[in-house]
Amino acid sequence: MIPRLCIFGVGLIGGSLARSLRDAGVVGTVIGCSRDEENLARALELKVIDEYVLDPAAAVDGADMVVVATSLGATATIFDKIAASLGPTTIVTDVGSAKARVVDAARLSFAENFGQFVPGHPIAGTEKSGVDASFASLFHDHRVILTPLAETNRNALTMVTGMWQATGAKVIEMDVQHHDEVLAATSHLPHLLAYALVECLAEMDESNEIFAYAAGGFRDFTRIASSSPAMWCDIAMDNRDALLSVLQHFTSTYNQLICALESKDKDAILATFTRAKTARDRAALPTHK
Amino acid sequence: MIPRLCIFGVGLIGGSLARSLRDAGVVGTVIGCSRDEENLARALELKVIDEYVLDPAAAVDGADMVVVATSLGATATIFDKIAASLGPTTIVTDVGSAKARVVDAARLSFAENFGQFVPGHPIAGTEKSGVDASFASLFHDHRVILTPLAETNRNALTMVTGMWQATGAKVIEMDVQHHDEVLAATSHLPHLLAYALVECLAEMDESNEIFAYAAGGFRDFTRIASSSPAMWCDIAMDNRDALLSVLQHFTSTYNQLICALESKDKDAILATFTRAKTARDRAALPTHK
Repeated sequence: MIPRLCIFGVGLIGGSLARSLRDAGVVGTVIGCSRDEENLARALELKVIDEYVLDPAAAVDGADMVVVATSLGATATIFDKIAASLGPTTIVTDVGSAKARVVDAARLSFAENFGQFVPGHPIAGTEKSGVDASFASLFHDHRVILTPLAETNRNALTMVTGMWQATGAKVIEMDVQHHDEVLAATSHLPHLLAYALVECLAEMDESNEIFAYAAGGFRDFTRIASSSPAMWCDIAMDNRDALLSVLQHFTSTYNQLICALESKDKDAILATFTRAKTARDRAALPTHK
Repeated sequence: MIPRLCIFGVGLIGGSLARSLRDAGVVGTVIGCSRDEENLARALELKVIDEYVLDPAAAVDGADMVVVATSLGATATIFDKIAASLGPTTIVTDVGSAKARVVDAARLSFAENFGQFVPGHPIAGTEKSGVDASFASLFHDHRVILTPLAETNRNALTMVTGMWQATGAKVIEMDVQHHDEVLAATSHLPHLLAYALVECLAEMDESNEIFAYAAGGFRDFTRIASSSPAMWCDIAMDNRDALLSVLQHFTSTYNQLICALESKDKDAILATFTRAKTARDRAALPTHK
């Protein structure tokens, strides 16, 4: 039970978390806080939150749990603004898609209270954003990765784990660097490729005629290019090192395929496509939820 | 009305075409032909075809319309095998995803009867294949591109257009080279990227652990890497020139994004992502079917 929960950023993730915890009956009062008062008013109207407070320091007053679900770019600023107002047992967690920089920022802001911070990342989302897109079952059967540090308070970790389990999520622990590498590969790289592909086609095709002939596969493939550009720009910048490392891998595979095509090496192309299909089919089954 | 229709390759495309024309009541007898007798027997059992014939030359005997819906790699061979047996008014069409080489092969095989051949390409499909995956509504509201040549018989063109319209498809005409460029950009390049991405991740991750953390966006993005490797290898080889040209464009966009990330040029990344989202959102609406 979380008597008083404060959520920064009541959008797709923050809003869905509030709805889900309320449905599960494990939360008392939900306070919303962000710079977007219009969205907060909408969240209030939708009964996703019970009240909202515009001042970050005032918002966390008396909170048992603080969830920072704003954009990655705003996270460090919020940590700074709330650090002095946190109670001695207030737990803080976040939902950022890249963890190393968030952890650095938290260490700086929270200083001796850094142990109360539990870095978290729910692997869930859609290409939509805002509280109107939020829904209670978003995290159901999805994974939430927590990346606790040596200093992390065990009770805080237990509480954050319990909160996510109450949404129906499966909670996993991973170290910060490994998290950032895995997410760079499975999420940040695909987003970058989807944006690059659509940008490339738009450049080639001033009249947008090309897009008219795109089949369903293309639309699935580029759906993630409809995600929030600001959010994904933040993620790319925040997870820059791991992303550049995985981009190096991808460039190598990509160049090999181009070489095979240039030299008409049909066997090499077929072998690559076949290995990829096998890996995709094997991997897709157990997690297809 | 097509009294006698002969389909080479009764898989997803050929099978769906037969089902659809039968549902529309515009076809008499449907003959299936391919090297895969087991699939033909299954097609017969499913009543997708009325009979099957294993010899290509015999299969087209008396046919009013011949649809070559095998893999691109087998198309030229079939043209060769049937050329001598076609009746004076038999119309031939195909469904290949790349048209220049198919047209070259048809010109060579059909010689003075080349005018009876109408190159075609239905923009429809799923990542599945085989007659069991076929269904009558596959082409409904999808586009079919025909790429007639100067020599193409106008009556043949009208008949093939009518056949596809009977399936609920929208028929468009385009010249061969333009078709191949558009498809390289919107279909062949995305497939190559999806295969390359999955191959890259599989190489990085011997234990397949990475895939377990992939979210929905990744699965959408890589679904097309579950498509038939042999078919897509054929397509890449057949449309090699157009594909290499669009790959050059993509490499340039991709490298610019990497440079921006390396030099921490957040504005450039955000601008690219924003342009891509705008293009994707604008383009996705009218054709989202």
